[in-house]
Amino acid sequence: MTQDNLIALLIETTVLKRLPRTGWLLRGVPDAESIADHSFGTAFVVLALADLLNASGTLPAPLDAGKALTIAVLHDLPEARLTDLPGPTKHLIPREVKVEAEVKALAALTAALPSSASFQALWREFEDETSPEGRLVKDADKVEMMIQCLRYELNGSRGLDDFWASMDRQEWHYPLCTDIYARLKGMRPGNR
Amino acid sequence: MTQDNLIALLIETTVLKRLPRTGWLLRGVPDAESIADHSFGTAFVVLALADLLNASGTLPAPLDAGKALTIAVLHDLPEARLTDLPGPTKHLIPREVKVEAEVKALAALTAALPSSASFQALWREFEDETSPEGRLVKDADKVEMMIQCLRYELNGSRGLDDFWASMDRQEWHYPLCTDIYARLKGMRPGNR
Amino acid sequence: MTQDNLIALLIETTVLKRLPRTGWLLRGVPDAESIADHSFGTAFVVLALADLLNASGTLPAPLDAGKALTIAVLHDLPEARLTDLPGPTKHLIPREVKVEAEVKALAALTAALPSSASFQALWREFEDETSPEGRLVKDADKVEMMIQCLRYELNGSRGLDDFWASMDRQEWHYPLCTDIYARLKGMRPGNR
Amino acid sequence: MTQDNLIALLIETTVLKRLPRTGWLLRGVPDAESIADHSFGTAFVVLALADLLNASGTLPAPLDAGKALTIAVLHDLPEARLTDLPGPTKHLIPREVKVEAEVKALAALTAALPSSASFQALWREFEDETSPEGRLVKDADKVEMMIQCLRYELNGSRGLDDFWASMDRQEWHYPLCTDIYARLKGMRPGNR
Amino acid sequence: MTQDNLIALLIETTVLKRLPRTGWLLRGVPDAESIADHSFGTAFVVLALADLLNASGTLPAPLDAGKALTIAVLHDLPEARLTDLPGPTKHLIPREVKVEAEVKALAALTAALPSSASFQALWREFEDETSPEGRLVKDADKVEMMIQCLRYELNGSRGLDDFWASMDRQEWHYPLCTDIYARLKGMRPGNR
Amino acid sequence: MTQDNLIALLIETTVLKRLPRTGWLLRGVPDAESIADHSFGTAFVVLALADLLNASGTLPAPLDAGKALTIAVLHDLPEARLTDLPGPTKHLIPREVKVEAEVKALAALTAALPSSASFQALWREFEDETSPEGRLVKDADKVEMMIQCLRYELNGSRGLDDFWASMDRQEWHYPLCTDIYARLKGMRPGNR
Repeated sequence: MTQDNLIALLIETTVLKRLPRTGWLLRGVPDAESIADHSFGTAFVVLALADLLNASGTLPAPLDAGKALTIAVLHDLPEARLTDLPGPTKHLIPREVKVEAEVKALAALTAALPSSASFQALWREFEDETSPEGRLVKDADKVEMMIQCLRYELNGSRGLDDFWASMDRQEWHYPLCTDIYARLKGMRPGNR
Repeated sequence: MTQDNLIALLIETTVLKRLPRTGWLLRGVPDAESIADHSFGTAFVVLALADLLNASGTLPAPLDAGKALTIAVLHDLPEARLTDLPGPTKHLIPREVKVEAEVKALAALTAALPSSASFQALWREFEDETSPEGRLVKDADKVEMMIQCLRYELNGSRGLDDFWASMDRQEWHYPLCTDIYARLKGMRPGNR
Repeated sequence: MTQDNLIALLIETTVLKRLPRTGWLLRGVPDAESIADHSFGTAFVVLALADLLNASGTLPAPLDAGKALTIAVLHDLPEARLTDLPGPTKHLIPREVKVEAEVKALAALTAALPSSASFQALWREFEDETSPEGRLVKDADKVEMMIQCLRYELNGSRGLDDFWASMDRQEWHYPLCTDIYARLKGMRPGNR
Repeated sequence: MTQDNLIALLIETTVLKRLPRTGWLLRGVPDAESIADHSFGTAFVVLALADLLNASGTLPAPLDAGKALTIAVLHDLPEARLTDLPGPTKHLIPREVKVEAEVKALAALTAALPSSASFQALWREFEDETSPEGRLVKDADKVEMMIQCLRYELNGSRGLDDFWASMDRQEWHYPLCTDIYARLKGMRPGNR
Repeated sequence: MTQDNLIALLIETTVLKRLPRTGWLLRGVPDAESIADHSFGTAFVVLALADLLNASGTLPAPLDAGKALTIAVLHDLPEARLTDLPGPTKHLIPREVKVEAEVKALAALTAALPSSASFQALWREFEDETSPEGRLVKDADKVEMMIQCLRYELNGSRGLDDFWASMDRQEWHYPLCTDIYARLKGMRPGNR
Repeated sequence: MTQDNLIALLIETTVLKRLPRTGWLLRGVPDAESIADHSFGTAFVVLALADLLNASGTLPAPLDAGKALTIAVLHDLPEARLTDLPGPTKHLIPREVKVEAEVKALAALTAALPSSASFQALWREFEDETSPEGRLVKDADKVEMMIQCLRYELNGSRGLDDFWASMDRQEWHYPLCTDIYARLKGMRPGNR
């Protein structure tokens, strides 16, 4: 990789700071967070969860926190080219088309990094939930979304019920996340 | 159609006021216009162009301005569910998948309107450029984009060169639009 | 009209995308919609209402949807020069002064369009409610406002009661709009 | 005045924080300042100018800085009801109508304050430029505008030339302001 | 002071229009007011309170409204360099460090104004509550904050309870402000 | 740590998405990025740099990318309580006071995480530049800032020269970063 390719990649990645999380936009949340905001949030949730889980003594083997953080940083990178396709698009763009687009975008974006192939493989562990770290980021991605959702509700936003309805059907990989979600739900303004 | 379906449609359509035109976002334009902003702009350009063209005496038959306005109002309606997929997604989501998604979205959105089938047919005239009015909206859609692009540049935005580069390859349907585009290009800050 | 006049008009009209609807601003709605957002919304409401009304078989004669759309696109055009004067100004600027200012602004803005006189006449049909299409846009203008008002309330905005109080006194031209308004009111957060 | 009237006044006045200075909006300045922002800026300019002028020994009599500050705080108060009517409205709303509207708005807003009549008289000194302090605020109002204009240009905004063109015809009351304006103009990006 | 120093000061002070009041940001208020917005609001509250108090006949000696306005305009000027340090920083940065930083900032900012020493002394009257006018601005600063807080709540914001909890412990200098605060509290959405 | 403490931490951390990077604000950049945006960007730069450096064969020992990512995620966490204190505060708040405040904030924020002590130690490696990974994040923090700075300039922002002037004096730890910075500087609009 030449440095120019690296710089082009870094400049392009800054668009994640400008692109909004469209789920919030569609529901009228003002000043909606960016994809980069969410990606940072997810990385932080991963850091905290991995630390707690590894200290809990309940896992068959400790999680590789560094690997999980790498996946967290990469998990929404394809959206630099695809943008954040919201829920309603699920009924309009076949899931396999979307996943293939994400795979292609990630490959193109990371093409010039020495570990591009490895990064793509890590992203698949997340997408396909095939490793403990991939599954942790899956859970963290949703925990982070619901933390933010609750935050918006505590700040006065309304009309976010379907986020909770959708998460009620979520199958969490880690019991800690099942527990966190239940507590978050109990903290909703209507529930107090 | 029950009134409740109509109201649901009208409420959903307001998301076009919140969803940004992602092409500007990706290039760092602050306070980027909404899809609804652009749709209004396109309708206004259609109104002006149809008036001028019909008065010019150069057309084989007069344009149906009302029909063209209908198409303008509908042309980005599918984005209420799909959002505005920017240029880079062209290499990631096959065009036929995108068009089919738009067709489906339009059908679902307008399902309860008596003229839903007719509205879908009008949209196809735009998409496939198969009628004078459909072609007019195609041209107006791009004229409006470049008017806005020039406006952003006149206001200090930079880094929009690829919009112009892309439009240099545009095949305009109406010579009036070819002329307008050339004049807009001549008004760019760098050109004065 | 020279093309340069046309381009000047099109560039000036883009300010409608930047100018906020001041009624929302005065009540603290964040990210308030633009005048162009509202104009698009009104055009879409017109499209839907005209379609439903014409299909209903209840009108003495069918509405000219194209004409109604033209009026919708034009109805707030004067605000490109006047901005959106909010409710409180009614007690400060005499109505006839405001209307004359709008008439002048519309004439100046459209001066170079061949059908300028016709467009001004259409705008008067809206302002004076002297044609079925003018009256339809009057109703649609208010329906659109209350759809957006409800949307803001569903999303958490409060303090918009006087919009509803004011609309309770509205004399709707079409029973369909009376009905829609009643339903919207029933959907307010406090009413459920 | 009952406290409830006072509180109503204070709550209403907060809208000056939400209402944008429309001159910037019309020229595409992003994140345009509020009327309250400008009013604070004007008060600060008044504070600095009065201090410098009084220390300069060039005035026939010292300025009453407290009086000038009072005028500065009041000078745009009517816009809480009228909003900021931009330049183009000058050709549409007769100046006497606008001034009368401002007079009425100020009277209504301050009705319950003991010194309402005095505040209205001070505002007239500003509007009619009939006292040294009124003239100082007139100058400060414009100096503040051009400081902000220059700031926007230094930060990348373009298309603000007509602000300078208009100020080139300004007749300043205080030579200090003539001098400041000349220096500001010399600092424009194009002039360096 | 050279005019260039004056201009540098005026340009720097415009940052108060861009810097947000961080207390609102930390609680998710969208479109949070700027420091300049708040400073204007405080000056206006001072104007109204001084007028009412002086007319009330309850003071041992009349307040110098011009002096109080000067203090109001200056009271947050140091934040042009320090930004608005929110509540949680109180436990992290010792109060004397913060005050010394503000003193230094004010001195540096006003260095070139003839009355710099006097302005610094006035600011100390505010900070140390050592004069009737300094105490008035202290009260006005908090009244203005709670007016805005109530306004945000009336507009739908939630999660601002700790502002009220903190103000419940406030020792007001003027009984009028004690009364205003009690009335504001009674107007909270939850209390009606 | 109870789950409630974890949830409180996660909710508090979302403020990093709302708090702006004040350096940009002070220079009038519109829609300035959040601290979370920057933290994500830094993590991504760390990911890319660590990958390139480890593949380059130029290091005495490979970097621990997971450790570096952990530091990147933590590096601005104290700002959740301190906010982003901009450059001018350096002359007002002694560096040791600021660092101690950050240390305290980090300790308090992470108190309930099992590895709190370890996280604090990692942060010190960053602050004191005492490990290869700490130094990498130091460099990445600045590279990310200048990538964003260049991006703002390419998009039309002006007045950011002192960022470059300040970075001209930066002592980079990794020659790769020295090289990247030189290339970024060569890409500035004025340099092409």
